[in-house]
Amino acid sequence: MSVTRFFNGYYLDYGGAVVRGEVHIEGGRIVYAGVARTNAAPKYSRQIDMKDGYLIPGFKNCHTHSAMTALRGLGEDLPLLKWLNDCVFPLEAKLTPEDVYWGTKLAILEYVRGGTTAISDMYFFEDEIARAVTESGFKCVAVGSAMDISKDAEGQLAEIEALFLKYGRADANFSFRLGHHAEYTASDTLLKGMAYLVNKYKAPIYHHLSESRGEVEGCAARTGLTPPLRLAELGLYNYGGAGYHCINLTDADVVVMKKFGVAVVSCPMSNLKVAGIAPIWRYRNAGLEIAVGTDGAASANTLDMFQETRLLSALQKGVLSQSEVMGAELSLLAAVSTGARVLGLHDCDGIQAGKTADLALIDVNSPQMQPASNPLCDIVYSARPENVRLTMVNGKILYEDGDYKINEAPERIYAEVKKIVKRIRA
Amino acid sequence: MSVTRFFNGYYLDYGGAVVRGEVHIEGGRIVYAGVARTNAAPKYSRQIDMKDGYLIPGFKNCHTHSAMTALRGLGEDLPLLKWLNDCVFPLEAKLTPEDVYWGTKLAILEYVRGGTTAISDMYFFEDEIARAVTESGFKCVAVGSAMDISKDAEGQLAEIEALFLKYGRADANFSFRLGHHAEYTASDTLLKGMAYLVNKYKAPIYHHLSESRGEVEGCAARTGLTPPLRLAELGLYNYGGAGYHCINLTDADVVVMKKFGVAVVSCPMSNLKVAGIAPIWRYRNAGLEIAVGTDGAASANTLDMFQETRLLSALQKGVLSQSEVMGAELSLLAAVSTGARVLGLHDCDGIQAGKTADLALIDVNSPQMQPASNPLCDIVYSARPENVRLTMVNGKILYEDGDYKINEAPERIYAEVKKIVKRIRA
Repeated sequence: MSVTRFFNGYYLDYGGAVVRGEVHIEGGRIVYAGVARTNAAPKYSRQIDMKDGYLIPGFKNCHTHSAMTALRGLGEDLPLLKWLNDCVFPLEAKLTPEDVYWGTKLAILEYVRGGTTAISDMYFFEDEIARAVTESGFKCVAVGSAMDISKDAEGQLAEIEALFLKYGRADANFSFRLGHHAEYTASDTLLKGMAYLVNKYKAPIYHHLSESRGEVEGCAARTGLTPPLRLAELGLYNYGGAGYHCINLTDADVVVMKKFGVAVVSCPMSNLKVAGIAPIWRYRNAGLEIAVGTDGAASANTLDMFQETRLLSALQKGVLSQSEVMGAELSLLAAVSTGARVLGLHDCDGIQAGKTADLALIDVNSPQMQPASNPLCDIVYSARPENVRLTMVNGKILYEDGDYKINEAPERIYAEVKKIVKRIRA
Repeated sequence: MSVTRFFNGYYLDYGGAVVRGEVHIEGGRIVYAGVARTNAAPKYSRQIDMKDGYLIPGFKNCHTHSAMTALRGLGEDLPLLKWLNDCVFPLEAKLTPEDVYWGTKLAILEYVRGGTTAISDMYFFEDEIARAVTESGFKCVAVGSAMDISKDAEGQLAEIEALFLKYGRADANFSFRLGHHAEYTASDTLLKGMAYLVNKYKAPIYHHLSESRGEVEGCAARTGLTPPLRLAELGLYNYGGAGYHCINLTDADVVVMKKFGVAVVSCPMSNLKVAGIAPIWRYRNAGLEIAVGTDGAASANTLDMFQETRLLSALQKGVLSQSEVMGAELSLLAAVSTGARVLGLHDCDGIQAGKTADLALIDVNSPQMQPASNPLCDIVYSARPENVRLTMVNGKILYEDGDYKINEAPERIYAEVKKIVKRIRA
């Protein structure tokens, strides 16, 4: 028996309170979470002194484009369409499968450094994402990224179904779910095909949703419906799923999404930089599930879930000029627990016996974490990736005290991504 | 001769471009900033390999209440007035001079860890702030914090004049400027007395300004004028200065502030959490000088100028849904250069020969700083305090690679502040 014991600190319990106690891990699972066991005598294979720090379920980054790390910093401060058309799309067209592999590896370094234990990745060359994730011991629920502006719908649908059949049964590290880019980048054929797959496999769907006013107005002009209403009518929401961004939902959209169990994945920093501010407090009060993502590094720059969680609260307070709304606990649970359930990862949505050990240990030995009067608020409003001492996925440590325990050295990954940038910008 | 050489990297030049080159420091000043000197042969006392990193002028945190670190995390997520009246004011009433000393020391750790080289501190027990700053080798322009809701105006004015005479002539570490809390917390007597001091000493003034709609409406109801117009009429702006927050300025306010050279100090995270979002892009386009601050840790939680600089850009983009406004260069220069001039620290407003060596070295050997395609945008949109390798004030290194080179050990400071919290909450 090999039991790892976290002791002398606090953990976020399943109800959302930070409590003093200890947590034991065995065989990739949490086997004990509760008060300190002073006189118990199991044979621990390792004892980790938390030094008054906080053990939390790892962040679930529910919307990202990992390999866009290669595009970080390119085309900044440009108008949105110019950025997409003159920068992102032409550069992405030059990316090879190997490039997506290395870009994903760079992202994984950043994820584990910042306490993220699972992501939902929407990018192309999914086999390369699977390779990068699986050999790193990381966790990813990939979703289809189909758009048929320049490609044929049938080919894309066949590819998505093939990926779903290949990776659809979740394993410990990589799985694949139905998805496509967005309503406004899909033909009727693609949307109807996606609806067919949703209903054939009784599976949820994931896509960008009502991110810009323009796409909502365009959909209304074409179809007489907002995107969520149109997608619901086509049958895409029969098994739930999630919409990314959702900056421009009407009250009628919210009612329909609640009825079908379609969650909102909010990406606050990316939204600020290229789109706007989503009225998350309104959605939450109307009963929608809220999860958190970073979006890709080309718009959000970093893949820092502490920043996104903090902004999820702070932006609602600021926009409404009401300091009491969207408290720290709501945002933290959205980022670590609701996110897991939105991705179908019910086994890693919190710290209690029986759950998978996807965890991050936050250190308090840092000026901005002192005097540590309010652990929960310090985690949300003060903590940063630098405060993560250890990140564990499926009970395996992937990052600890400056060392990445994955199969490629950071220096090698940095060098490979630099080569990609040089080539695609040439 | 003792010359320190930063080489093999980039620096932010005086015009706001990140350029490859090297920087030499001697006697607390920059003596060379320019292209790499491969065949020069001065005797360097130390050569610092920047490893492709970025040397920037240190951040100027133009509005903070340092010792509020002791209140970090207390009274979170409460309505503003409840937070102030039930939490902040009662706890502050229990703070002793020694408490302010230790709270300031904790803040200084955080400042130097995050590349901040100068602050403007508004708090009481200024002699203790001076002690904490001076013995740390840090830099502070303190400003008066008078309000006469519960104290007599004459006594406060006498105290401010005494502090101004004692510390008014800037030395290398600590100076004092005229200031008071805000228009809405000052009697006519206090405001007229402040105006007298401003004009007697031909000195700029600093205070909170038009932070909430309520204070603007209150001033209008009492006086028929907005706060900036009233303060200008009383003569408080005859020698310029700065207003903190400025979330609710009218166009007429902006015209008057521009005429008198009154700058805006924006504190984006604190504003989000307790007040709102300032229309900085509008102020900037109307010609106001923009500087950046954190506000105190009781509202902003951290004293992280990277976060504030990033939000200064991102919030304007988000609120206006225009990704091209308030580019990274504008925000970075506001935070490192304009801020210096707003505080009267013209000698440390940039990197060029003759300027004081107040510098921060940013490392790129970190996942979120790679592939380093766009140094300026990476500094603003990606960097965090953890990326600061070294912080130097007046040519003296105060932080380097995890070590604080100040006169008290972090552990001692943490313990003292914990004691304060325990006592004032009892």
